[in-house]
Order: sequence, then structure tokens, then C-alpha cells
Amino acid sequence: VALARTGNPRAIARVISQVENDATAAQSVIRAVYGDTGRAHLVGITGPPGSGKSTLVNELAKAFRARGRTVAIIAVDPSSPFTGGAILGDRVRMRDLAGDEGIFVRSMASRGSLGGLARATAAVVKVLDAAGYHMILIETVGAGQAEVDIATAAQSTVVLEAPGMGDDVQSIKAGILEIADILVVNKADRPGASRAVRSLEMMLHLGLPAEPETIAHGPGHEVATAAGAAQEAADAAARWNIPVLETVATDGRGIPELAAAIDDHRHYLEASGQGRLRERLRAQREIAAALHDRFVARLETEVPAEARLALADAVAERRLDPASAAEQLLAGLDTNHRSIH
Amino acid sequence: VALARTGNPRAIARVISQVENDATAAQSVIRAVYGDTGRAHLVGITGPPGSGKSTLVNELAKAFRARGRTVAIIAVDPSSPFTGGAILGDRVRMRDLAGDEGIFVRSMASRGSLGGLARATAAVVKVLDAAGYHMILIETVGAGQAEVDIATAAQSTVVLEAPGMGDDVQSIKAGILEIADILVVNKADRPGASRAVRSLEMMLHLGLPAEPETIAHGPGHEVATAAGAAQEAADAAARWNIPVLETVATDGRGIPELAAAIDDHRHYLEASGQGRLRERLRAQREIAAALHDRFVARLETEVPAEARLALADAVAERRLDPASAAEQLLAGLDTNHRSIH
Repeated sequence: VALARTGNPRAIARVISQVENDATAAQSVIRAVYGDTGRAHLVGITGPPGSGKSTLVNELAKAFRARGRTVAIIAVDPSSPFTGGAILGDRVRMRDLAGDEGIFVRSMASRGSLGGLARATAAVVKVLDAAGYHMILIETVGAGQAEVDIATAAQSTVVLEAPGMGDDVQSIKAGILEIADILVVNKADRPGASRAVRSLEMMLHLGLPAEPETIAHGPGHEVATAAGAAQEAADAAARWNIPVLETVATDGRGIPELAAAIDDHRHYLEASGQGRLRERLRAQREIAAALHDRFVARLETEVPAEARLALADAVAERRLDPASAAEQLLAGLDTNHRSIH
Repeated sequence: VALARTGNPRAIARVISQVENDATAAQSVIRAVYGDTGRAHLVGITGPPGSGKSTLVNELAKAFRARGRTVAIIAVDPSSPFTGGAILGDRVRMRDLAGDEGIFVRSMASRGSLGGLARATAAVVKVLDAAGYHMILIETVGAGQAEVDIATAAQSTVVLEAPGMGDDVQSIKAGILEIADILVVNKADRPGASRAVRSLEMMLHLGLPAEPETIAHGPGHEVATAAGAAQEAADAAARWNIPVLETVATDGRGIPELAAAIDDHRHYLEASGQGRLRERLRAQREIAAALHDRFVARLETEVPAEARLALADAVAERRLDPASAAEQLLAGLDTNHRSIH
């Protein structure tokens, strides 16, 4: 862990493997590195299969490298391991980015539960953040709730689509759109690109909450012109108009603009106070997850397995309802806990 | 609730609305009806948009009606409410099934959290089960983790696809395939249908665990021929070979075979003991969810909001890691709890 914090890629890779495979190890790693986190800019990039995510993420990584920043890429595939897609994409990617020591690439495939994957991703992000990477790009394949959950680990979320993906896909995308800070129509050289842009702009217009009301000014502000101008600038910083950008990742078109938009979003987060608000929400979610883990562990050590199984069978056979079973378990915990202290 | 249990459609609809909108009401409704549940056959039907789910579910409902059974349909749309898809599909469906009092239809759209939707669906299923519907068809739009979660409420899961949905979709489907008890290629009159069937059969062959070993026979069984035959029949009942069926829902082709396969799966669940095993797992999940609710409620009443917010801020500002914050909260709970008793 100490070596990983200095940025040693082999040490980082080894710590990440531990964090992925062992929940207990993950906890102690997070404890060790947590104080050093919070400096990287975490960017989630998501969109349906076929939208050209991997190529775009590679180009984006190069663009940030050209600006002198180090970049870590985490490619998360929540679909079943037996597709092998993540591994395949990874090889192509490796060839493309090979030889640059300022870029770190890691693929993560789903193993068992999705909640587990989201948690492992959050832990890996912390290791890379503490290791000093300036930008952490979290790429997720697919377009479902998994991506929404994983995206909550990011500070800025880029949602990608490509022209001609069909109207059917719209229904999947709606939930995804709501988490977008930046929208991108990739493969913008294909027919239908401008229609896709218009359709996204329309969905933004229809579906998202209207601009927040201008912050109520305190007394006196309306008289001084200079103060008014300052207030206007502050108001502008407090708003974020979700841009809809066009890119052609295969030839790099639109990539510098996308990189700039991502930087703009970070500045917006800082200037508006939204960044602190999002950090607080993330902290609340992480505390809740840690609480849940501890609670489950306590239940498993303090209530005998046979007692838990007997309750499950009573519920399965309709002799007891789930809420009453939960109450009996809690009562058992409390009794046990009182007798321990 | 009493009227709903007699099967009164208006009362059922009113109870369902309460269950959807009010978590506390949902709890007491579940408590009231739980003892009457466990009789309906819960069938999950899922697949990507465009695979013709709604039409197939309608035809299936009619097929079960022709066999003299009552049918409830719950159409769940986990995508954002502003697509309006669920409502639109519902109107078409209503026109198609109107006038049959043995069919009850309900759409549920996502409101807020996905976990909330899965829980609301489970509660609605219980109301309909207690009301005496023989078949409960739970239809989910999309092809993501949401569907997997909702499908765990079902006893038999049918996964649908249509020819020519593109290879990209494969990566989404992989996770879904793993929950399938029955696979269906709908729109089987379209080109590519037999290729889709073959590709599904290959995925089954590649990706799913091999047939379970024949159960080890006790001593003596190998000598008696009659006992051997009985054992063979028992072994056959203990296996389930996932069928890949072809349907054309628009003209009803293949629907009787699908209805028969669903019945076969229920018999398999009963004969093999798998049904009891699945019920036990469901019970464990429902107890865990109820426990979690109670735990969160206790935390919110016993730990002051300011204390929780202060901890979240400490974590957001990296002064404290999430696990340590969780431990402080738990310590607070325990102290509080001891002093109450």
C-alpha cells in the first residue's frame, strides 16, 4: 500500500487485485489511503454498447496526457464474465496506449453481485486517487441501473450515444440521461448525427427540471452595479447547462472540446458548491454501506445459523411474515448485545 | 384489504395504490395478507425492448384463461417515468384484454429508487396472490440488473428475445440468460429466427453450468429394476433442461407450448424440491430487507440528524474514513439502546 501511494504501477495493480478479491482487505486498504483521496477528478463515461466508448475514452486519456496530467482508466463490465468483452476491449486498448507510463488501465468484470462490483469499483478509485492520478476515467459498458450506480462514484458523468441506435433504446436511456453532466453524440460523421443531437436536446428540455431560480439576493445587492455584476457571475457559476457535444473518436474530432467541457464541469462543481454537496452525498452513501456491512456481520456472528434458517423456513412456509421475522432477529441481537456489555 | 382478499378488483386496485405510495402501509398490508400467499404461480417475463413482450404476455394471459385460470399482469418499467412507455403499452393492453373479469392488469413505473420499485413489486405480487389469482405474470421492460432483481420475485422466469437485435445486445443479455428457466425467440417468422435459436442454445451450452450429476443412489437401489425405474423418474424430475421455444405472439403461434412449458416448470419446482429451496432464498432476502428497514429507522430516530451530518462532513472532508464513521454511529446506537432498556 505504501508503495502504491508513491504511484508504483506494479504495487497499484497488486493492491487493486487484493481490493477486488477480498472485502476485508478492501476495508483496511481504504482506511489506509482514505486521507490521501479527494484530489483526483473522477469522470464516469457511460453509454450503450456500440457507441464507441473505449475508443473515445482512449482519445480522452491522450488529450489529458497532452495537458500534462496522469490518467487512470477503469473499464467496468457489469455483464456476465462469460462474454469476455471486457478482456477483448482491454487488449485493443493496451496496444493503443502502450508505452505511456502516465496512463494506468484496469478492467473489472462482474463477479457475483452487482453491489459487490460497485463497491469494488469505489475501492479501486480510492487506491488510484491516493496514488496521485490526476484524472480517473470510469468507463461502464451497457445502459442499465448498474451504470447509474457506478456513476454515483464519479464527480462528472459523460453519457455517450451514437446515431441510429434505434428508438427502442430511448426507453433504456431515459434513466441514464438523468445522471448526465455532459452528453456526447459519438460517430458524429454518420447519418442521423444531427437528429440524435436534436433528440437529446429535446429530451433535456422535456425531461429535466428547469433552470434553478436565481438565488434570492440579500438586501442592498440590487443597488450597487459592481456588486450586481459580481452576483451575476456567481449566479452563472451556480448553473450548469448540460452541453450536447459531437465527437468522432476514431479521428479525434471533438475530443479537445469534450476534455474542456469536463474541466469546465469540475470548475462549476467547485465554484457553485455543488461539488461539496455531491461529496457529502457520497460520504453518506459510503457510511450507509459500511454500516450495513457491520450490521450483517454482527447478525451472522451473534445469531446462530440454525435460528436464522428456522426463521427463513417459517417465512417460506407462511407461518410468519418477513417483518415479524426481522423483529425476532433484532430482539435476539439486542438481548445478546446487552448480555455482552 | 379484507375486500381485496375476496378478489374485488376495485379493492385490489386501491390496496395496490396504497402499497405503491406508502412504505408503512405496504408493511401492514403484507402482514395482513402474508398467510394467504404462496398459492399463485409467479412468472417473470423479461427481454429487451422490441422483443414483443407485451403482445406475448397478453396472448399468454389468454392461453391461461382458456385453461380456466385467473391471471394478473404486472408490467414494470424501471426506466424513467418521463418515457411514458408503460402507460402507452398499458392502453393498448387494456383494449386487448378488456371485458374479461378474470384478468387484472397493473403498470408500475419507476419512482425514485430501483430498490423501492423491486420492493413495491414484491408487495403488489403478495396482494394479488392473496386475492386468489392463479397466475401472476410480472413483465419487465429492458434488459439490465433491474430485471434480474425483479425476476427474483418470480418462481419461473421466461427470457424473451427477437431475431436481428444485433450482436451488441449479446453483452447485455448474458447476465439475463443466467436467470432464465425458459428461453423464447419471439417474432420467429422473421429472418434470422433459427440463427437466434442456435445462438441461444450455444450460449446455454457454453455459459451455464453442466447438468448436475445424477444424485448418488443409496445402496440396494442398483439391484431392483422397479426401484431403478422409479429412481430414474425421480432423477428426471430433479433436472430442468432450459427449453428454447419459438413464438409468433402476433398470431398466437407457439403460445400453447410456452404455457405448457411454464406449467412443466412449476411441476419441476414441486417435484425436485427446487421450489422449496427458492422459497427459502426468497424468505431470506425478504427478512434481510425488512431488517435493513428497521435498522435504518432505528438509526434515524436514535442518532440525531446533526450528528449524522457532522459525520458525513468529516468523511467528505477526509478527516474520517467511512468505516470509522460507521463504527461511531453503531457505538452511538448501542449506548442509546442500553440506556433505553
